[in-house]
Amino acid sequence: MIIIGEKINSTLKSIRPAIENYDAQAVADLARRQYEAGADYIDINAGVFVDDEPERLAWLAKTVQDTVDAPLTIDSPSAVAIRKALEANRNPKVMINSITDEPARFNEVMPLVVEFKTSIVALCMDATGMPETAGDRLAIAERLIEKLTKEGVAPEDIYIDPLVRPISTGGHYGNVAIDTIREVKKEFPDVHVSCGLSNISFSLPARKLINQAFLIAAIGAGMDGAIIDPMDKKLVSMIYAAEALFGRDNFCKNYLKKYRSGELEV
Amino acid sequence: MIIIGEKINSTLKSIRPAIENYDAQAVADLARRQYEAGADYIDINAGVFVDDEPERLAWLAKTVQDTVDAPLTIDSPSAVAIRKALEANRNPKVMINSITDEPARFNEVMPLVVEFKTSIVALCMDATGMPETAGDRLAIAERLIEKLTKEGVAPEDIYIDPLVRPISTGGHYGNVAIDTIREVKKEFPDVHVSCGLSNISFSLPARKLINQAFLIAAIGAGMDGAIIDPMDKKLVSMIYAAEALFGRDNFCKNYLKKYRSGELEV
Repeated sequence: MIIIGEKINSTLKSIRPAIENYDAQAVADLARRQYEAGADYIDINAGVFVDDEPERLAWLAKTVQDTVDAPLTIDSPSAVAIRKALEANRNPKVMINSITDEPARFNEVMPLVVEFKTSIVALCMDATGMPETAGDRLAIAERLIEKLTKEGVAPEDIYIDPLVRPISTGGHYGNVAIDTIREVKKEFPDVHVSCGLSNISFSLPARKLINQAFLIAAIGAGMDGAIIDPMDKKLVSMIYAAEALFGRDNFCKNYLKKYRSGELEV
Repeated sequence: MIIIGEKINSTLKSIRPAIENYDAQAVADLARRQYEAGADYIDINAGVFVDDEPERLAWLAKTVQDTVDAPLTIDSPSAVAIRKALEANRNPKVMINSITDEPARFNEVMPLVVEFKTSIVALCMDATGMPETAGDRLAIAERLIEKLTKEGVAPEDIYIDPLVRPISTGGHYGNVAIDTIREVKKEFPDVHVSCGLSNISFSLPARKLINQAFLIAAIGAGMDGAIIDPMDKKLVSMIYAAEALFGRDNFCKNYLKKYRSGELEV
């Protein structure tokens, strides 16, 4: 499982003031804690600062990499902001979050993927919006993968995001997300599938229960990346349990190792 | 979800002495607690007492029903013991756990299903033992369902158990169980699928993590019955979360109700 640490995100109240005040210590600390907890990538997002997102995103890139060696996930719909952060990045491994099949966004972000040889999160979304069915989402994933690979992006550098909508707004959205994951992974085994969890439980109480259930089901359907809080020990423990359960952890070796090192929370 | 309370089982150290000593108070108490926690059926098992299993099983049936109105799941491979317990039973709703496609066992248990109009747990197992693949298990399920319905058993009175083997003895056994559930439910939507959880995590540490992950995945595949400890609040909470997630709880009504009544444990 490729874990993308989601915590350095300007939409989160806990860290927003630190990004606002250029508090390098607070950002660095959050980067280090996520990295030590096992994050493979550190997501950075400065999207709420509409006036100077590019500068703040570049500052986040620099600040994180002054502290830890983790590759970044540069989280913005804006090509200008992404470029600024990519120029500040020093790690050869880097991911952009995200591209869609909306023509303007695709045409602006695509050249950055090629120029900076990045990995890329591709959302199952086009100019008509978020499709309702798993079949329509698969069709967008197919188009995005075709266009990306045609530009020279390796399948293993593509992270398809099925787009998760809240089950509180439609009882079928859990199955839609899970079916999309299963179908994308079946057709493109070398492409990664990843997504965030928290949207699924939006507006419901005891959200962690729903998020955990969704995580398990998504891993069962083939998801191999997750944008999560890597310091949520229970959630990460469920990942190891799920990988053992679904035969993705030979002889439960990794599960047992994590247990012995005290990393599992029951 | 049909919850079968698993706690009155002579293989469990916690209750075995009570069954041994005919301690009606302890058995009644455990029945009542499971029933109050939401068990739809109370499983009774006296299998470790080889010399007088029938008498003890009948005593369990009587003792449970003197306390609560819950239907019983009579848990034994022995037709003699099952008959004794069925004769002691007073509830029109009753389940036998279990029948297999082994000729001797099938021929002994089948007449009891018909005579007492019981529901029946049918294990995916025949004279050659436990099959390795999901396809072979489905084939046994098909045969069992065909034979049972031919004798007049309604599909909704049949509970197919996919048979769960520990992932510690084979990394594929999680997927085998889950695929069996999915295929049985796809072919026979009116038949129930249920199973116990704990076998999946046999010999591993932090077993609850694996059991929870398996529960979620099994519900996602269509499982609609579970032989569990209904007093395990976290596990039961995961059931409600999973049913909401998989579109089996309209407008998350049941989930919200359980939350408001304080029954969910995060």
